[in-house]
Amino acid sequence: MAGGIKLAIVGATGAVGQEMLKLLAERNFPLQDLFVVADPREAGKTVSFNDKDLIVQAASPEIFAQADAALFAVDSSISKILAPMAIENKCLVIDNSNAFRMDEKVPLVVPEVNAEDIKLHQGLIANPNCSTIIMVVAINPIHKAVGIERVVVSTYQAVSGAGAAGIDELSAGVAAYQDQVKLEPKVFQHPIAFNVIPHIDVFEANDYTREEMKMVFETRKIMHAEDIRIAATAVRVPVYRSHSEAISIETKTHITPEQVRDILKQAPGVIVQDQPGENHYPMPLYAANKDEVYVGRIREDISSNKGIMLWVAADQIRKGAATNAIQIAEYVVEHNLY
Amino acid sequence: MAGGIKLAIVGATGAVGQEMLKLLAERNFPLQDLFVVADPREAGKTVSFNDKDLIVQAASPEIFAQADAALFAVDSSISKILAPMAIENKCLVIDNSNAFRMDEKVPLVVPEVNAEDIKLHQGLIANPNCSTIIMVVAINPIHKAVGIERVVVSTYQAVSGAGAAGIDELSAGVAAYQDQVKLEPKVFQHPIAFNVIPHIDVFEANDYTREEMKMVFETRKIMHAEDIRIAATAVRVPVYRSHSEAISIETKTHITPEQVRDILKQAPGVIVQDQPGENHYPMPLYAANKDEVYVGRIREDISSNKGIMLWVAADQIRKGAATNAIQIAEYVVEHNLY
Repeated sequence: MAGGIKLAIVGATGAVGQEMLKLLAERNFPLQDLFVVADPREAGKTVSFNDKDLIVQAASPEIFAQADAALFAVDSSISKILAPMAIENKCLVIDNSNAFRMDEKVPLVVPEVNAEDIKLHQGLIANPNCSTIIMVVAINPIHKAVGIERVVVSTYQAVSGAGAAGIDELSAGVAAYQDQVKLEPKVFQHPIAFNVIPHIDVFEANDYTREEMKMVFETRKIMHAEDIRIAATAVRVPVYRSHSEAISIETKTHITPEQVRDILKQAPGVIVQDQPGENHYPMPLYAANKDEVYVGRIREDISSNKGIMLWVAADQIRKGAATNAIQIAEYVVEHNLY
Repeated sequence: MAGGIKLAIVGATGAVGQEMLKLLAERNFPLQDLFVVADPREAGKTVSFNDKDLIVQAASPEIFAQADAALFAVDSSISKILAPMAIENKCLVIDNSNAFRMDEKVPLVVPEVNAEDIKLHQGLIANPNCSTIIMVVAINPIHKAVGIERVVVSTYQAVSGAGAAGIDELSAGVAAYQDQVKLEPKVFQHPIAFNVIPHIDVFEANDYTREEMKMVFETRKIMHAEDIRIAATAVRVPVYRSHSEAISIETKTHITPEQVRDILKQAPGVIVQDQPGENHYPMPLYAANKDEVYVGRIREDISSNKGIMLWVAADQIRKGAATNAIQIAEYVVEHNLY
């Protein structure tokens, strides 16, 4: 672990934290030291990294003082408490929560879209919402080519977006269905097994959910495109892993599906999967454990004279969270920004 | 069974045929006689109706000659063969397949929308595609109030849309997943358990699926609105029963969500379920075995200055097929149109 940075993972025992550890090893991230931090009740446990056992510690000013940067994979409420502690101790925070994303002083970054914004950080960089990351990787190349005026998106979101408890609730729900017994949902508002639920996060005053509004505000901030009009419907589906999205785009000037395909084939972080005649299009089952955003079903929006329809799938724990945070950290190391 | 009509159910052993028999009993349909018809290989079997056993017969000119009307719940290819036989024998056909829907001489009917068209029949009335029926029941009242210019819709379609075999494949897929064995899909193009598949019916030359294009052409025909622009993404989800749809509408003149709610509360066949603060919105699990179309998540389309967003769920075997066909038959009886 020489020649790199001293990194802390905060929330190392959770679904995203675990994925971050996996990715650090997989990508051979330049580490000088690695601290694994979690809830004080988990301190003393071990998590494995590169075949070694690392001891989980509670967060403390001392740990943050030793670390150059920390990847936060905890709830907003915890981020709000611990991020100031880290920053005070000169530890750069890359935060996966919703706590600071819309703060004007905080860069909100998807490296394929706005890596340069990382340079403007003041001690904290925010990782966007998973559904937003997946969408902007797919649509930003089109925006750069011809300008996007409007987006209407419907999501098909996996239960692991609600963490390990979401996964367990789907499994328990399937078993309860098979045994014909009733299972009282705890993580989701309603049974998720063999159902879909048009409700993710809380409802806002305009009757959109916060998840839907994140896709509006975060997309505009990441793409530096305050005038794009966006409306979303965010829906939970009984899928374990990877989110999908049906996206309709209105562009400023006309673009053909063939041109979009060519642009996306060159785009960073995108894999075009678009041979419908061979039943080849993105699906969550096959996007799982991948770092790229899969884009297909690229076609003219026949309800618009300047519209394109897309179908997108990506692993929301990887590109939608852990991979994106680590890409930010890699950029930070490469450009000495910590 | 006196005082009513002589009715045949063609495809009486299938999912939709079985539902039709259930509904005939439930709704106390005015029957003078009932013939149950299915594949010749099933002739001699019995199906139960109102606690009686009826003997399945193969289709024949003699049966159609005895029946006043027949509800067809068979594949297009079978409808194309048997419908002319029925018509020749003066038996009115109400056909659930895709075979004749876009034929100019054939009324395509959702009774809540265009019941009057039934009067124009020339021996055959077509029952629309399930996703289309569900959508038009929800949007036609808005169209009548302020005019609809454009619709963008994403569907979340249940496996029973592919019949009993679709249901079995989801169950088998879930079991295979639990046992960690591989199951080769037969009904769907890919595994459907814990996956979503953006592909229903075959792909057309414009890279939309036929299912998606049915929602375009059939909606226009049913609503007598040739100039509505429509684009759809049709997606199969691991739900046993009931389709859901995320619908974005652009209207000719502005309408508020509150006005839409008021209009839909008065609309035939619609139940408004729209108390998001109480986690109350349509879902397939609760729409199953119901005859109405549930509409909720009614809100301004914030990407448009004249737009409304809706979320809709309905039982596609009932209102999307069997119920709609029987409503047509009830209208036929009531107005002596056979």
